[in-house]
Amino acid sequence: MSTVSLIEYENASAEVRAIFDDIKKVRQVPDVNNFWKALANHPAALERTWESLKQVMAAGTLTELEKEMIYLAVSITNNCEYYIHLHTASAINKGMSPAQYAELVAVVAMAHETNAFANAMKIPVDAGFLAR
Amino acid sequence: MSTVSLIEYENASAEVRAIFDDIKKVRQVPDVNNFWKALANHPAALERTWESLKQVMAAGTLTELEKEMIYLAVSITNNCEYYIHLHTASAINKGMSPAQYAELVAVVAMAHETNAFANAMKIPVDAGFLAR
Amino acid sequence: MSTVSLIEYENASAEVRAIFDDIKKVRQVPDVNNFWKALANHPAALERTWESLKQVMAAGTLTELEKEMIYLAVSITNNCEYYIHLHTASAINKGMSPAQYAELVAVVAMAHETNAFANAMKIPVDAGFLAR
Amino acid sequence: MSTVSLIEYENASAEVRAIFDDIKKVRQVPDVNNFWKALANHPAALERTWESLKQVMAAGTLTELEKEMIYLAVSITNNCEYYIHLHTASAINKGMSPAQYAELVAVVAMAHETNAFANAMKIPVDAGFLAR
Amino acid sequence: MSTVSLIEYENASAEVRAIFDDIKKVRQVPDVNNFWKALANHPAALERTWESLKQVMAAGTLTELEKEMIYLAVSITNNCEYYIHLHTASAINKGMSPAQYAELVAVVAMAHETNAFANAMKIPVDAGFLAR
Amino acid sequence: MSTVSLIEYENASAEVRAIFDDIKKVRQVPDVNNFWKALANHPAALERTWESLKQVMAAGTLTELEKEMIYLAVSITNNCEYYIHLHTASAINKGMSPAQYAELVAVVAMAHETNAFANAMKIPVDAGFLAR
Repeated sequence: MSTVSLIEYENASAEVRAIFDDIKKVRQVPDVNNFWKALANHPAALERTWESLKQVMAAGTLTELEKEMIYLAVSITNNCEYYIHLHTASAINKGMSPAQYAELVAVVAMAHETNAFANAMKIPVDAGFLAR
Repeated sequence: MSTVSLIEYENASAEVRAIFDDIKKVRQVPDVNNFWKALANHPAALERTWESLKQVMAAGTLTELEKEMIYLAVSITNNCEYYIHLHTASAINKGMSPAQYAELVAVVAMAHETNAFANAMKIPVDAGFLAR
Repeated sequence: MSTVSLIEYENASAEVRAIFDDIKKVRQVPDVNNFWKALANHPAALERTWESLKQVMAAGTLTELEKEMIYLAVSITNNCEYYIHLHTASAINKGMSPAQYAELVAVVAMAHETNAFANAMKIPVDAGFLAR
Repeated sequence: MSTVSLIEYENASAEVRAIFDDIKKVRQVPDVNNFWKALANHPAALERTWESLKQVMAAGTLTELEKEMIYLAVSITNNCEYYIHLHTASAINKGMSPAQYAELVAVVAMAHETNAFANAMKIPVDAGFLAR
Repeated sequence: MSTVSLIEYENASAEVRAIFDDIKKVRQVPDVNNFWKALANHPAALERTWESLKQVMAAGTLTELEKEMIYLAVSITNNCEYYIHLHTASAINKGMSPAQYAELVAVVAMAHETNAFANAMKIPVDAGFLAR
Repeated sequence: MSTVSLIEYENASAEVRAIFDDIKKVRQVPDVNNFWKALANHPAALERTWESLKQVMAAGTLTELEKEMIYLAVSITNNCEYYIHLHTASAINKGMSPAQYAELVAVVAMAHETNAFANAMKIPVDAGFLAR
């Protein structure tokens, strides 16, 4: 149950429609996700977030798939239900194999376990790492 | 300030030394990190954690560097100081360039922003993603 | 699906009814929220929590609406579904406009992004802030 | 101990200097915070984040002080040491009184306690709040 | 809605069935939980996790019930819906009384409140505790 | 570096001294911890928090040591440095053995790992647990 209503294209302002059109073109999808329909209640946030996301998620020295997997790892750690579903789907869409997914989840879970050990015991950072 | 003392090789039991030796061999390092010296207070945890980590972090369908970057993304999200330092260093060690690091951090930060929007507005998961 | 049953007024003990009556009077509502019906399984926690909340949320040097918005910001960050819904509704009830809500959510999301940058890079606190 | 070096104005590129100049002008400060000096390692992130922050934190239907307090509440909840120090200082700078600070912290702490109760007992959202 | 399918015993490989059989024997249950059916998509993770969990959760110097309660406290703090339900049920199964549950939840909630105060005010650790 | 100053007994108001005296009597300690000296900046919060904590942490159907260990598990999960140090020390003070500490930390770390798996895969809660 959303705390905001979703703005569909047909009910959107010209300003919002222009952003929706850009999302559809860049992402090559027939419709935008609910995330954008919700943000459309706040056009300034919609524009700012889309411009940032478009820039950040474009392939660079990391591939688009690597970026999707890092995004997914953060969303799992934040336990953000919406983005866990979205980025699992997007990563698969961009070519993540079942074996890669299994390895991703295992690394995430292992990192949680060792983070807890390190936090519990307040392990001092090794001098060699701090010297950087 | 640690809540446990660190066990150095020369003060370790034969059981702990055997694990330290394996870590040094697999990681090709002259000494083990403080993490292992702290866990050595609990030999069963030391063995179990090392066996798991060795298995999980080995190159598979994801490269070792990709795994390091995912581990780092989780550690940043958990704000685990020890592992942020450790995995920033390890990832650089395994070849992460400054540009890749910049992109990694930007994706992590962007994921935090959009996770917060999605959680705040309790955006419903798109039917297409749930149908999977 | 709750892990506890909800105690309705008609099934409550005299002790619990007295607290429910005080909540209804202070909040000027016809019935208490599910939160209180769940806590009523633990009368000591019910009384203690209500007395604290009544004191903390009363208008002081911050207005009731400002307190609601701060409460909502924390609940979003903790991703507490129950309180996100409750305090979005309460804040609107106390006069939060759609524009104020949009600004609140944008600040929360922006704070998440910059917190992630700061944690990732372990940015040292500026001397001027520590000197205070 | 930072994982990146801080870029001082005198060592910055023309592009970075222009952004530093804008920050100093808008914020009316003689020098930028370490946050910006760290982000300056990644000029694209620096520009994007400053443009977003300038827009989001400007007074709107919420005052600048209200926005500072919401930012602080999120940073406390994320336990981001850098931003806890920074926004405690900025909020005081923008007029937060000791009494307002005390009330802010009390609301944040209370929200944490009740969030934990709600999460523990998986309290169902009241129908009235979902109907919105 | 799961992001993976659940593997039932009759569709499982011999390798997975052997682990399911061990879980059922050790836990003395007629069928394994959905957690194991989901992990069965990743047999290496299934085996590793079960071996670790079996070792960690066995009665030692802490009783099985004490371990369940600690597990539940962590799951509430992480707001992990699956494990909140699972470990509330398991702890009751192992003898947790309603009064013990009430005390557990009160301690968890109180810890959240004081953790928030300590993080907000960045209270320095007492010399006596650091000297340990 | 604290964001508030610590109030020592000799500089405290009569109201704060009375609470400090009660803490010292109940806890049988010669001086109160920094936590209370920091909260003393906000006498209402000091009184409310002490009254709650005194009630919640007293032995009941759970022993004082069990409560300390649950408190510590939450503080590790929240990564609250102050309380990790404080409750590790208090639990040892109340009789936690090195073996019990090792088991506690192992359970906490294991819970983190499995919570991450469950969140990643959005494992549906078993019908049997929801039926409660």
